[in-house]
Parts: sequence; C-alpha cells; structure tokens
Amino acid sequence: MSDAGPHELAVRGVHGLPEFQPGMRVGEQIAARAELADGDLVVVSQKIVSKAEGRLRKLSAVLPSSEARRLAAVLGREPALIELVLEESAEVLRAERGVLIVETRHGLVCANAGIDSSNLPGKDTVCLLPEDPDASARRIRAELAAATGASLGVVIADSFGRAWRLGQVEVAIGCAGLLPLDDWRGRHDSGGRELAATLIGIADEAASAADLVRDKVSRTPAAVVRGLGRYIGAEDGPGAAALRRPREEDLFR
Amino acid sequence: MSDAGPHELAVRGVHGLPEFQPGMRVGEQIAARAELADGDLVVVSQKIVSKAEGRLRKLSAVLPSSEARRLAAVLGREPALIELVLEESAEVLRAERGVLIVETRHGLVCANAGIDSSNLPGKDTVCLLPEDPDASARRIRAELAAATGASLGVVIADSFGRAWRLGQVEVAIGCAGLLPLDDWRGRHDSGGRELAATLIGIADEAASAADLVRDKVSRTPAAVVRGLGRYIGAEDGPGAAALRRPREEDLFR
Repeated sequence: MSDAGPHELAVRGVHGLPEFQPGMRVGEQIAARAELADGDLVVVSQKIVSKAEGRLRKLSAVLPSSEARRLAAVLGREPALIELVLEESAEVLRAERGVLIVETRHGLVCANAGIDSSNLPGKDTVCLLPEDPDASARRIRAELAAATGASLGVVIADSFGRAWRLGQVEVAIGCAGLLPLDDWRGRHDSGGRELAATLIGIADEAASAADLVRDKVSRTPAAVVRGLGRYIGAEDGPGAAALRRPREEDLFR
Repeated sequence: MSDAGPHELAVRGVHGLPEFQPGMRVGEQIAARAELADGDLVVVSQKIVSKAEGRLRKLSAVLPSSEARRLAAVLGREPALIELVLEESAEVLRAERGVLIVETRHGLVCANAGIDSSNLPGKDTVCLLPEDPDASARRIRAELAAATGASLGVVIADSFGRAWRLGQVEVAIGCAGLLPLDDWRGRHDSGGRELAATLIGIADEAASAADLVRDKVSRTPAAVVRGLGRYIGAEDGPGAAALRRPREEDLFR
C-alpha cells in the first residue's frame, strides 16, 4: 500500500475475505489479507461483523406481536420484519412511507433499526446490527493487534440515510482506538477568533471515505485508511457512543 | 501525488493558496498549485469560494428587522446576524438553543443558513454561502479545465451538523462534473436479491474524505481526491441540487 504523507490520506479495500460464518474472527481474517502499519484505521462493514456474531434471523421463525402486525399493515411491510425492528428499538420516531425511523437499543437513530436483507443467504433471512458495535470494534482491534503487533484503530460502518439530504452515507456505529470527535471548541482560528462550534465527526468522515473504495456487489467489506495516525491512540477510547447526540440536545425527534 | 489503483483512493491537500479577495479565480489558483490528472476530484472549502465571490458582510452595516430583533432576543444572538440568516433563508425549521435551523434559498437545511465568522478579517465580518454553489462549482471546473486540460470534478464543501449525531461532517453544497448520487436501486446483490434502497451520497462522502486532510487552523482550503474517476463525467451534471431531499419526502421538518 502506498504511504500517505503528512495530512495525506490513502484508502484501499481489503480483498479476498471469506463469507463470514458465526464464530469466525473478523480481525484475524483481515490481518491475514491486509498490509497494516501503526496508525492505520481498519473500517469494517457492519454486515460481516453481524454475520460473524450470528446476528442473522429467519423471518419465518419470528412471531409478530399485535403491535408489529398493526404497524406492518400501515407501512405495507412484513409483520415479522417489523417485529424484529421493534425488538431492536428503544423508541419509534416515525412510521411512514414504508419505513420505521427508530432509536435502536444502542442509541442509533436510523431506518428499520439497521436491519437489512441484502447480501444474505436465502430470501427469508435478515441481518441485525451487532449487539454492541463498540464492543465488536474493541474485539476486532484486539485480534488485529495480536496478529500484527501494530497500533491500529477500528471503525464498524453502516449506511444510514439522513434527514433533509438524499443519498445514504456510511457512518461509524462502533469504533475503538480512534478519536471519534475532534474537538476544536476553545481553539482559535488564524485571525485569533475563537472557533465557536467546531466539533468534527472524524469517525463518520473516515467511514464515508472508506465507502468510496467499496463496491456493494463485489463485496469489499473492509478497507484500510492510512493517514489518520494523529487520531489513533493506545486506548480503545469512548467508541462511537460519543457520536450520539443526547436526546435533550436534539431538535429533531 | 501518489497514484491510486482501481478502487483505491488518495487524498492530498492543496497547499500555499493565497488569502482570497473578491474577483480572484479559485480554479486558477488551485490549478497553479496542484498536480491534477483526468478523473481527479477537486474539493474546495465554501469559505474561499464565498470570499472570492465577495460574500462577506459587516454586521455593523446590517439593519435588523423587527422579526430579526425578536428572534435574536429569544436566541441570545446578535440581531444583525439573525437578520442575515433570515435574508438567506426560505424557511425557519427550528429556533432554539442559540441556533436557527433553516432551509436556505438554495434548499440546504443547515444551522444559521451556513453563515460563519471563523477565519475572517475583523470581528465584525461574517461570511455567507455562495449565491449559487452549483454555479460556483461549474465556474471553478471550467477554470481548472482551461488551466490543465484535464477532465475533473469539483465539489464545494461545507461543515454541517446533523440531526441525532454529534460532530459536524463536510457535505457537498455544490458540485460539477461529479455524479453526486450512485444509484444502485434495481441492481442485484451477490445473491441475486434486488438492492432495495441503495442510493449512495458520493459527493457527500467525497467531501468528508477531503476534510480528513484539512486543518481548520493552518488553512488547507482545498484537496484533491484521486480514485473516483468512475464518477467523473464530461458534463457538469445535476450538481449538489440532486442531494436535496424533496420536502414532501422528508419526515423531519
């Protein structure tokens, strides 16, 4: 992989990863196929983490509640899918246009609790988000460290839609070893004026950068971002939990 | 600049740009300082585009309306700033916690109509967004093409906060020559299942990738993203206007 100079970024996909089965170690598999160096950030698609953690469900095995059946009829969706969405959710924000916008039990606001049916075996199967994506990131980071000896960061990324803007972008649903937010508040600009509200979503920007080398069909479910060493630390850090806007500070609930 | 292989990305800042004054040509200045090749994407900070277009305003020269004075008192902000925000806006979505969330006349939903006071000369000066950021991108693209002969894309990027998530990320407020959305709807995954709702915000992800090589203090207000040639076309294309979610499809107004 080409080196990235100071304030230069290089992003490359990790190719040749296997189809993940429950119990397989994502970090080990990536370490065997990527050149990794101190300061690299490994961005991993949620889908393979969920598969390795056994988070697939068969809709035919789900018994929908009456509330799930009611919402499914309103939305024109499968009751079993809606049941899984409700089980994964702490709160329903919107139920319109065939989609539930929810806050998941992890505190992520997204459509259908992140449950997805693409790139899965069998038409009856859906994939849930990892149980605890920050814990998943820490575990993958430990596997990568054990295999490579390098000091790395890990992001677990998923595609989220946005309010007001079309197009999904990848965001960090879990991370470890990476400073998720770069806080410039209290620092000063080049003219000596205090930067008022500059808190930069590094982990989300890195997830988006990694998506640009991926391909939804050929399955490149991991990428290495080189050049963010200044945000990679020895500790696992606060994780992507730090990216969740507290409910009481959120104007759009 | 290092080459980027297929499905590999390289991002590098453009250094040594001057302080922009009204009438200066952003594309010419960048072309003089960056190695550019066919298929490169040039990501330019909104701030320098606005400066070159003379979009600075002195708050002391603004006469606030009674509505601006009323809102300013509620929000604890300067009436002159609120007046400018209202002048730039088509609709106010929220007025709380010291901030106006508005839809700008361009159709962008953001805080304070994108008006910003960092990295500007004089404490009384603020910077408005470009009058028409897609037109700005087309003009910069034409300047770059004239200076280099290369087929390039241009994104004009600004930092926006998000609903539900902490941390600002850079998004595309204008673009030219770049496919802003990669539409996978109707295509099929590796298992033959149709990808239901996969519309990828390429222009926004590229803006975020470019931000990772920038530095808010040392002023690196432009970056070159190499490796997105498959999204760069001969035509200017639909611009960032294509990223605006139609009001009637938006659940969070």
